[in-house]
Amino acid sequence: MNQISPPAAALTEARPVAASPAFDLSRRLAAETLGTALLLAIVIGSGIMGERLAGGNTAIALLGNTLATGAGLVVLIAAFGPVSGAHFNPAVTLVFALRREIGWPTAGAYVAAQLAGAVAGVLAAHAMFAEPMVQISGKLRDGPAQGFSEAVATFGLVTAILATVRVRPQMVPAVVGLYITSAYWFTASTSFANPAVTLARSLSDTFAGIAPQSVPLFLLAQSAGALAAAVLCGWLFRERSRP
Amino acid sequence: MNQISPPAAALTEARPVAASPAFDLSRRLAAETLGTALLLAIVIGSGIMGERLAGGNTAIALLGNTLATGAGLVVLIAAFGPVSGAHFNPAVTLVFALRREIGWPTAGAYVAAQLAGAVAGVLAAHAMFAEPMVQISGKLRDGPAQGFSEAVATFGLVTAILATVRVRPQMVPAVVGLYITSAYWFTASTSFANPAVTLARSLSDTFAGIAPQSVPLFLLAQSAGALAAAVLCGWLFRERSRP
Amino acid sequence: MNQISPPAAALTEARPVAASPAFDLSRRLAAETLGTALLLAIVIGSGIMGERLAGGNTAIALLGNTLATGAGLVVLIAAFGPVSGAHFNPAVTLVFALRREIGWPTAGAYVAAQLAGAVAGVLAAHAMFAEPMVQISGKLRDGPAQGFSEAVATFGLVTAILATVRVRPQMVPAVVGLYITSAYWFTASTSFANPAVTLARSLSDTFAGIAPQSVPLFLLAQSAGALAAAVLCGWLFRERSRP
Amino acid sequence: MNQISPPAAALTEARPVAASPAFDLSRRLAAETLGTALLLAIVIGSGIMGERLAGGNTAIALLGNTLATGAGLVVLIAAFGPVSGAHFNPAVTLVFALRREIGWPTAGAYVAAQLAGAVAGVLAAHAMFAEPMVQISGKLRDGPAQGFSEAVATFGLVTAILATVRVRPQMVPAVVGLYITSAYWFTASTSFANPAVTLARSLSDTFAGIAPQSVPLFLLAQSAGALAAAVLCGWLFRERSRP
Repeated sequence: MNQISPPAAALTEARPVAASPAFDLSRRLAAETLGTALLLAIVIGSGIMGERLAGGNTAIALLGNTLATGAGLVVLIAAFGPVSGAHFNPAVTLVFALRREIGWPTAGAYVAAQLAGAVAGVLAAHAMFAEPMVQISGKLRDGPAQGFSEAVATFGLVTAILATVRVRPQMVPAVVGLYITSAYWFTASTSFANPAVTLARSLSDTFAGIAPQSVPLFLLAQSAGALAAAVLCGWLFRERSRP
Repeated sequence: MNQISPPAAALTEARPVAASPAFDLSRRLAAETLGTALLLAIVIGSGIMGERLAGGNTAIALLGNTLATGAGLVVLIAAFGPVSGAHFNPAVTLVFALRREIGWPTAGAYVAAQLAGAVAGVLAAHAMFAEPMVQISGKLRDGPAQGFSEAVATFGLVTAILATVRVRPQMVPAVVGLYITSAYWFTASTSFANPAVTLARSLSDTFAGIAPQSVPLFLLAQSAGALAAAVLCGWLFRERSRP
Repeated sequence: MNQISPPAAALTEARPVAASPAFDLSRRLAAETLGTALLLAIVIGSGIMGERLAGGNTAIALLGNTLATGAGLVVLIAAFGPVSGAHFNPAVTLVFALRREIGWPTAGAYVAAQLAGAVAGVLAAHAMFAEPMVQISGKLRDGPAQGFSEAVATFGLVTAILATVRVRPQMVPAVVGLYITSAYWFTASTSFANPAVTLARSLSDTFAGIAPQSVPLFLLAQSAGALAAAVLCGWLFRERSRP
Repeated sequence: MNQISPPAAALTEARPVAASPAFDLSRRLAAETLGTALLLAIVIGSGIMGERLAGGNTAIALLGNTLATGAGLVVLIAAFGPVSGAHFNPAVTLVFALRREIGWPTAGAYVAAQLAGAVAGVLAAHAMFAEPMVQISGKLRDGPAQGFSEAVATFGLVTAILATVRVRPQMVPAVVGLYITSAYWFTASTSFANPAVTLARSLSDTFAGIAPQSVPLFLLAQSAGALAAAVLCGWLFRERSRP
């Protein structure tokens, strides 16, 4: 018989990813809000900067947008991970709740904090670039190829997180930053892979925006991709029990 | 006399690179299939994205393709390495089989999994970018310079892996990702360095494709480079026996 | 009762960030001077190189400037951190002084060393690129959006440092380098985030320059951002006391 | 009195940087030859690739050249460092000889191995890109600004190595790769910083070449920069003796 019983093991696993007992809930929610706000400021802000400077070459604009987002994610996850787990993403929080590594009430509070932070981050980016504060994106991102891209993007993100969070936890910031660096280019949708980011990006009619009518498809595809990854990883990363 | 006899030492060496006894064969093959599929989705997908956005400047397209592939490889190897060793490459599997760090039947199963995954990854990239699913590349990559490039590329890749896998195993994901980042630019062939990747890329008539008639030269050169590296490293990294 | 009393704990905390007792003050000041000089040589030099080669495309010039600055910061902080803490930034020194992790007289000497180093670095960049040694920038960077950008940039920098310096000290060089990589793109001001850098950049009428009349706004905004981060982090990263 | 007497301490220090007693001299020289050959293949090869693809935009060509060289250096130093110390650079070997961390006869053999490897690497690059094997560069790199750039570049490289090799040895590959990434952009000479590389690059009339008549200035400036760094670091990184 194992020395650690399953429920106790689940609690042990939970610590690095979600519930750091060293920090109370208000600090954890502040970390989720602030981290998601900075993430959106990075995504929107670097998109504006890229488009303004690139002289019409979209690949060059996307290079700047990619560099800023990938590098910024490493920093944000390294900084806030020890406090809140650095989800910044309702799809990630949902997966950890399904795995019982975070309680449902806490998960709900996390998602609310992420959404509030995401909107604040868009406003901050607009203020930094002297853009009108309130905008609605007109950039349609429709069709099955975009939906499939978001499903693949979120599947890959959740798989990368679940694969590394327990065996190589110190690599999680780099893994997530590098994954998004890659996914900005290998998916046709430039990999939103995050429902809070998707909703907030509908509030910016700039390089990184998405029209509100395209949002539901993205949210649906992201959920499907996240759930598929959760199911697969639940099997794939389960080690042989040692007798 | 050494305290560890040669056969026992070989078994000990095998663990980090190939045969993680904590995971059964089905999980290891699933990791090889999924990892190679994502690798091909990254290579093909980011090639399409780069070419579509770069406005005809091939260097800019290759920058995006490079960034996505290098960053993605770090993630895939960090994620799946603990399960299967993260070969994703028949040339690497062959070398480990020759070094008796993986059995021949397992090696055969690995290669089959890699080939199946590679084809699936090409299809996924086509679906994400609304490309026709079935394509044959018309991009000729012929001549001795291309062949020599592939031999050098694979020689360098295998050398980098064998040099770091035992002394600095935690650096392997970064080493492979950075090696390919470099090799996309310093070899005239943009460094396929992988027979499964080569075969699958013949099924995409996009930026990263290769015409079927150019494939045999690449496979031959890759095999020669891998074998040369295996022989050299077998000598170069053998430490003095301690009396 | 805790085993380490508060004053002793403060001394312990101080070591990795500011006062390495293994090095005397003259070496620590030399490290601050030399590190800040190399930082400015990198910022100004790579800006000149980028602008000269980019053929008028500002985004491409900024990519080179970003790559050089981000990579260079990692090196400088890894190299000089063990000696002086590698502040290179009066805003960072001020925050550590307010947190009583460095004494005020030492902080004053650090800032003087940083300013002297920064000016020397600008001169070195001009000499390397055969530019007139003494210049005054004519590049206006004015208005509330620029000021808000600098406040956000410095807030984020100080938060990233305070978040990682104690729990993940070995990650500080990468975190700062990646943060600035990101902030060059996500802030409208390209993230000076450093009063010594700001003052010295007014002495170069090149890509990275700033007109003297724009300097006071930057210094004010940087101070506000740094103080806001110090207050917030003082609360956010305080763990529960263990009974 | 210290427990380790100075001569014994010098021997202890020598191990990680130069004389790994686990490998005999023939393997160490092979590592220096092969590593320097791959370094030159990377520098020359990626320069050719960049120039061929960049459509006349030198900044874009330099971005590819930089990415390949920086990433490649990390790999080469991680791979061969445990065998030979991964100098690949007569200026670095000279500094370690002056510090008595490597004997003069060994240092001489290292430099010969580096020179042979460097020439072989240029030939390999030419073969990969179907260039004439034997070339002489016509690219003049003259004047005091170029000389001062090389002195600064080599000073910074040697300082970065001496700063990290003992306190953070596992960071040396990343530090050197990132330093050169930065120095390609912040020095007017694109930072050769290596006499073997300089001599070999005179044998390639491509992007990364240097006319033979410009070589002496570079060698002189590199030697001056390396010696200045050795003297400064001998003082700067000497910790207080503990009574």
